[in-house]
Amino acid sequence: MGMVGGGQGAFIGAVHRMAAALDGEIELVCGAFSSDPERSKASGAELGLPPDRCYATFKDMIQREKRLKPERRMQFVSIVTPNHVHFAPAKMALQNGFHVICDKPVAFSLKEALALEKIVEKSGLVFALTHNYTGYPMVKQAKSMIKNGELGKLRKIVVEYPQGWLSTNLESSGQKQAAWRTDPKRSGIAGAMGDIGSHAENLAEYITGLKIKEICADISIFVPGRQLDDDGNVLLRFEGGAKGILHASQISAGEENNLNIRVYGEKGGLEWRQMEPNTLLVKWLDKPMQVLRTGVGDLCLEAQAATRIPAGHPEGYLEAFANIYRNFAHCVQAHINGVSPDPVRVDYPTIQDGVRGMQFIEKVIASGKSKSKWVNM
Amino acid sequence: MGMVGGGQGAFIGAVHRMAAALDGEIELVCGAFSSDPERSKASGAELGLPPDRCYATFKDMIQREKRLKPERRMQFVSIVTPNHVHFAPAKMALQNGFHVICDKPVAFSLKEALALEKIVEKSGLVFALTHNYTGYPMVKQAKSMIKNGELGKLRKIVVEYPQGWLSTNLESSGQKQAAWRTDPKRSGIAGAMGDIGSHAENLAEYITGLKIKEICADISIFVPGRQLDDDGNVLLRFEGGAKGILHASQISAGEENNLNIRVYGEKGGLEWRQMEPNTLLVKWLDKPMQVLRTGVGDLCLEAQAATRIPAGHPEGYLEAFANIYRNFAHCVQAHINGVSPDPVRVDYPTIQDGVRGMQFIEKVIASGKSKSKWVNM
Amino acid sequence: MGMVGGGQGAFIGAVHRMAAALDGEIELVCGAFSSDPERSKASGAELGLPPDRCYATFKDMIQREKRLKPERRMQFVSIVTPNHVHFAPAKMALQNGFHVICDKPVAFSLKEALALEKIVEKSGLVFALTHNYTGYPMVKQAKSMIKNGELGKLRKIVVEYPQGWLSTNLESSGQKQAAWRTDPKRSGIAGAMGDIGSHAENLAEYITGLKIKEICADISIFVPGRQLDDDGNVLLRFEGGAKGILHASQISAGEENNLNIRVYGEKGGLEWRQMEPNTLLVKWLDKPMQVLRTGVGDLCLEAQAATRIPAGHPEGYLEAFANIYRNFAHCVQAHINGVSPDPVRVDYPTIQDGVRGMQFIEKVIASGKSKSKWVNM
Amino acid sequence: MGMVGGGQGAFIGAVHRMAAALDGEIELVCGAFSSDPERSKASGAELGLPPDRCYATFKDMIQREKRLKPERRMQFVSIVTPNHVHFAPAKMALQNGFHVICDKPVAFSLKEALALEKIVEKSGLVFALTHNYTGYPMVKQAKSMIKNGELGKLRKIVVEYPQGWLSTNLESSGQKQAAWRTDPKRSGIAGAMGDIGSHAENLAEYITGLKIKEICADISIFVPGRQLDDDGNVLLRFEGGAKGILHASQISAGEENNLNIRVYGEKGGLEWRQMEPNTLLVKWLDKPMQVLRTGVGDLCLEAQAATRIPAGHPEGYLEAFANIYRNFAHCVQAHINGVSPDPVRVDYPTIQDGVRGMQFIEKVIASGKSKSKWVNM
Repeated sequence: MGMVGGGQGAFIGAVHRMAAALDGEIELVCGAFSSDPERSKASGAELGLPPDRCYATFKDMIQREKRLKPERRMQFVSIVTPNHVHFAPAKMALQNGFHVICDKPVAFSLKEALALEKIVEKSGLVFALTHNYTGYPMVKQAKSMIKNGELGKLRKIVVEYPQGWLSTNLESSGQKQAAWRTDPKRSGIAGAMGDIGSHAENLAEYITGLKIKEICADISIFVPGRQLDDDGNVLLRFEGGAKGILHASQISAGEENNLNIRVYGEKGGLEWRQMEPNTLLVKWLDKPMQVLRTGVGDLCLEAQAATRIPAGHPEGYLEAFANIYRNFAHCVQAHINGVSPDPVRVDYPTIQDGVRGMQFIEKVIASGKSKSKWVNM
Repeated sequence: MGMVGGGQGAFIGAVHRMAAALDGEIELVCGAFSSDPERSKASGAELGLPPDRCYATFKDMIQREKRLKPERRMQFVSIVTPNHVHFAPAKMALQNGFHVICDKPVAFSLKEALALEKIVEKSGLVFALTHNYTGYPMVKQAKSMIKNGELGKLRKIVVEYPQGWLSTNLESSGQKQAAWRTDPKRSGIAGAMGDIGSHAENLAEYITGLKIKEICADISIFVPGRQLDDDGNVLLRFEGGAKGILHASQISAGEENNLNIRVYGEKGGLEWRQMEPNTLLVKWLDKPMQVLRTGVGDLCLEAQAATRIPAGHPEGYLEAFANIYRNFAHCVQAHINGVSPDPVRVDYPTIQDGVRGMQFIEKVIASGKSKSKWVNM
Repeated sequence: MGMVGGGQGAFIGAVHRMAAALDGEIELVCGAFSSDPERSKASGAELGLPPDRCYATFKDMIQREKRLKPERRMQFVSIVTPNHVHFAPAKMALQNGFHVICDKPVAFSLKEALALEKIVEKSGLVFALTHNYTGYPMVKQAKSMIKNGELGKLRKIVVEYPQGWLSTNLESSGQKQAAWRTDPKRSGIAGAMGDIGSHAENLAEYITGLKIKEICADISIFVPGRQLDDDGNVLLRFEGGAKGILHASQISAGEENNLNIRVYGEKGGLEWRQMEPNTLLVKWLDKPMQVLRTGVGDLCLEAQAATRIPAGHPEGYLEAFANIYRNFAHCVQAHINGVSPDPVRVDYPTIQDGVRGMQFIEKVIASGKSKSKWVNM
Repeated sequence: MGMVGGGQGAFIGAVHRMAAALDGEIELVCGAFSSDPERSKASGAELGLPPDRCYATFKDMIQREKRLKPERRMQFVSIVTPNHVHFAPAKMALQNGFHVICDKPVAFSLKEALALEKIVEKSGLVFALTHNYTGYPMVKQAKSMIKNGELGKLRKIVVEYPQGWLSTNLESSGQKQAAWRTDPKRSGIAGAMGDIGSHAENLAEYITGLKIKEICADISIFVPGRQLDDDGNVLLRFEGGAKGILHASQISAGEENNLNIRVYGEKGGLEWRQMEPNTLLVKWLDKPMQVLRTGVGDLCLEAQAATRIPAGHPEGYLEAFANIYRNFAHCVQAHINGVSPDPVRVDYPTIQDGVRGMQFIEKVIASGKSKSKWVNM
């Protein structure tokens, strides 16, 4: 694995490295960790990389790694930069034969995302997007139960992603994570709706298997001086007639990272909460609620494959993130070996999820500005 | 107390009677329990009333009670009929000098509600509306904390009222509660939005002290053959700039009676859930969350007055309902005695809440039908 | 109903009155509310009783009520005094033909309890003891499931009753509840073990249907100057081979009234917590846990009969207490009418539970002082 | 790192490897993964090790690694075998200059543990024991608060470790984990009390800083045919006067891995539950309970150092386990570099904890057999 971004002071880069390292199957061999070449070197040194594998730019990295012998060079590129530096390294990596795993949202704009989709398809290579919340076993179990019709036809979906960390003008304090996420030049047209709203959209469509058809959004900036949205409330209409609500917020004071979803069908309902991720509540019409738990009873194959340790030994955010990496790596290895991957492992977010996410971001911002009630997705 | 409605097979009548009885301060002395005179007699007999105080109609009751000596006759009327039989008995009772406590929504239409408002004002009598959820101590504590500015300026309110009991066409089975609630002739123009959406609206405005200014609603009927809405998702804009979401549903399969509210301000947030009503979560920016509990520590006077037993002895729905009755009865008694009531006890929903509720019902149904994004409240 | 005790400043008297009043089937007609005749009068007046039914002593009450016409006089006596004043009024009431409902523990000593048992048996009258926690619907459901063998043979029982309200020397502040509970002259030989430990013992034996056979106790007084135990940890051995733990404490700082029980058998386990009383967790070997809830699905008849309102409308401590009163009153009425009571309603703690509780209290204190490991119950 | 044990089919070996890998600071370079040399080779190959670093025995490994150049050879040994194979490899590793990290309990008997203690002390090397539950940030926070006197003098400690996975005779099915844990030849004199009871003991002493002084135990075998205890209930007396309860069970049907602890002092109480490890409840006398959370507010330095990602991104069992490895590795590195380790990182269980654990195991089994009430620790 070669990494683009994730140098000193970054948050998500370290997460990607821990996720990649957890199962002992992926080795970080090189990186272009910062747009500042000195910082890139220093970051790589801290990570124990030899100086000649710490590159000044992603271009250097891709070009020079390509010249190494196959058994020595990186096999894929992990892109963990802010949104405005996703497209270029992804494109170049793919066009030079490297598989890619990329942080979300997949690009700076829908236009970029659509262009990247074509590049991925043309390349025939493996491309994964780290919509990491779909890596949790109980999210997979929820998807499986709905697919199997256990809830009957779906009627209502409520997906929420409240956070409180941007309740104040943190970006003006120099906090690096806040700074780029609230900067239209690096984040794109959306703030909270891009950063976390797109996770909520992805989770809802992943679990339900339904596409959002129409949206009606009220998008706000609450913190004075902020340039991008920090809160959004959205009515949803899904194909097939289900209705729903999505709201995402970074000014919900006192909330940590409270992504959650509830899905209701004709026969029952499901509830999953990211902050207690090993639990899936299953509610029935006039029968006792069941508490499904990671590692207990007959769960779907994808959930079992995404579980490392016995029930009651909590697995968390990094393990779910690692599940994306592990499935991606399995498919990369199968590609290299010229064999078919295990179908249970072909389970990670793709460029199509990335395009869908960018559609959501552009449409939800458009709806927020629109006086029309409904905007088509 | 004389009761209108609440005969055999009714649900809310029994609730009103238990709520009135709990504190040993209110005595049921007569009633017109059913539109069927025989059923009214039988119901009254079951309740231990003498035959001459079991009336065939509310008109009979009001006229004949009025002729009794003051020390013997009922002092107020409790109206627990379906919505279409709220206005007439309330009007007649008030015009004959009886105080009134009425189930919600206050009337069949906004027009009726506005007419009743004038009658109440003219009468100078005590009128209470059983928006019972405002009777919980921790709801009062939430209101108090917000009023005192502990959360700072409010930014976001999320109020939910999911139930699942109408997930099937229960009304066609003859179930009495389902039948009238889904019948436009008895319920009015709204189903779920009137029955429980108005509770959510009332709770949000009670706790925050803010009025909803604009709404954007998506109102649905999911169960085939049903005549009134069984689900609604609503974007809210409050005066002063706060935004929010209200959703109410009777097709959220597996949900019991899951009314809940979260309020976020500049400094912190609050969360209250009706199914665990003795707990109020208080969330802060980068400080530990606090769990406020009925009976623990320094709560506001209204919360203390609404608590009967020590902490950890759970008080529930009936106790909260009884708090409305107890405060109402206190004010009735003060009126009779010609003295000022204790200000802490002047804490119950009024005709103004009733008018507000009917405005919400009419506007939310209108918004559901409208192609415009925002409808003014 | 005539009440002994429960005058101004008392706690449990008001609880009994609310519990008796809730269902509108029991009327308080007289009382001897205090050992101070003036206070008794004043308390009765506050409760709306005529002066001639407010008696100076329980002896007066029983004698004078007996002389009233049957349709006018009290039908049963409710005893809500401190422990040292349980036996005498209970004995006199029963010997004068009045049914009795009495607060727990049933007497000041085992000797008194055994004597009372004989008096009850001889009288043929109805005697109920307010071990109120057995009045909760989900406690009845737990009992029923175990009786039906759903957990298989029982192996382990853990019952806890932690409170924190006596963490300081509250009795020296003049707080009335603390004062008598920590006074050997009024409370008996035990403090916490009598006040709440006996509830835990009763709950464990009620739910499991098993008798405790041997105990090994470590009994402590933590607060300096206190005369009676404020904490106890007890190993339990049940008949049939189940093992267990009982601990009760009034110095578990920050705990409210956290009675809870877990029972494990060969096939599964149960967990019930008084502070969330409408929930019963049912755990299975390698199957999802179920969350049984008051009002949801097929519960046992006793649980259904103990539920007043639909699921999700929380019923609490007073409702459970009222269930004892309602079942007792049903049986009193059947006795008066000379008919058999509904078997589902013959469900309230009896004098035998009271004797059992006194055995526990005497044995647990003895075990605490003993150097032997096991003490027979 | 060189590993002893943890070959195919093992559970805890994989946990150690993931824990060691997570932070990218420790590399598995060799192993003797099984007592079967072929299995050891195959296991090593699966882990990507070259054949010449997959050894047939731990003796081979230690001898041959010692001959490698310092920069190439393993720096420490990780011992993940069943209990009866802890002492020999630990002793040999230490005597050959290798630091050791060892699974718990530290040895097969107290005698072995005491011998090992001397060897560790003589060696001057770093020795860590994976009592992994002390690796959780909120456990460290609890310890810190108690040390700082925030709860006042401690009075009561309740520590529980219920599991249900051995509710049936799983060992007879060939399940490898069950087989050795219930076999006195491999596990030692204790079953559940050694496997998980010792974790509970360690957690209680770690958090409170108090030593258990006396115990009184009731130890059981519930599953027919089982050779070692599967349940134990223990009364505790701590130095300084605190009392407590410890119970551990592998027949608590339906329980996953529900280690939890509650500590009560004069001023307040703490509660921590392993299955929701990022939460620490802090209870106060008549003030609202606080919910401390990983990553929120001012936590102690040790808790901060044990946290990798922001609040609300759940960290679990593997992360806590990795904290032991990370601190151990830091101290190993400091030892190699001849510098003092960061005091915040000198935070991992030691050989003294191991000796203490073996004392507990021997004493608790002795107490279970004893007719005396109290056994000195």
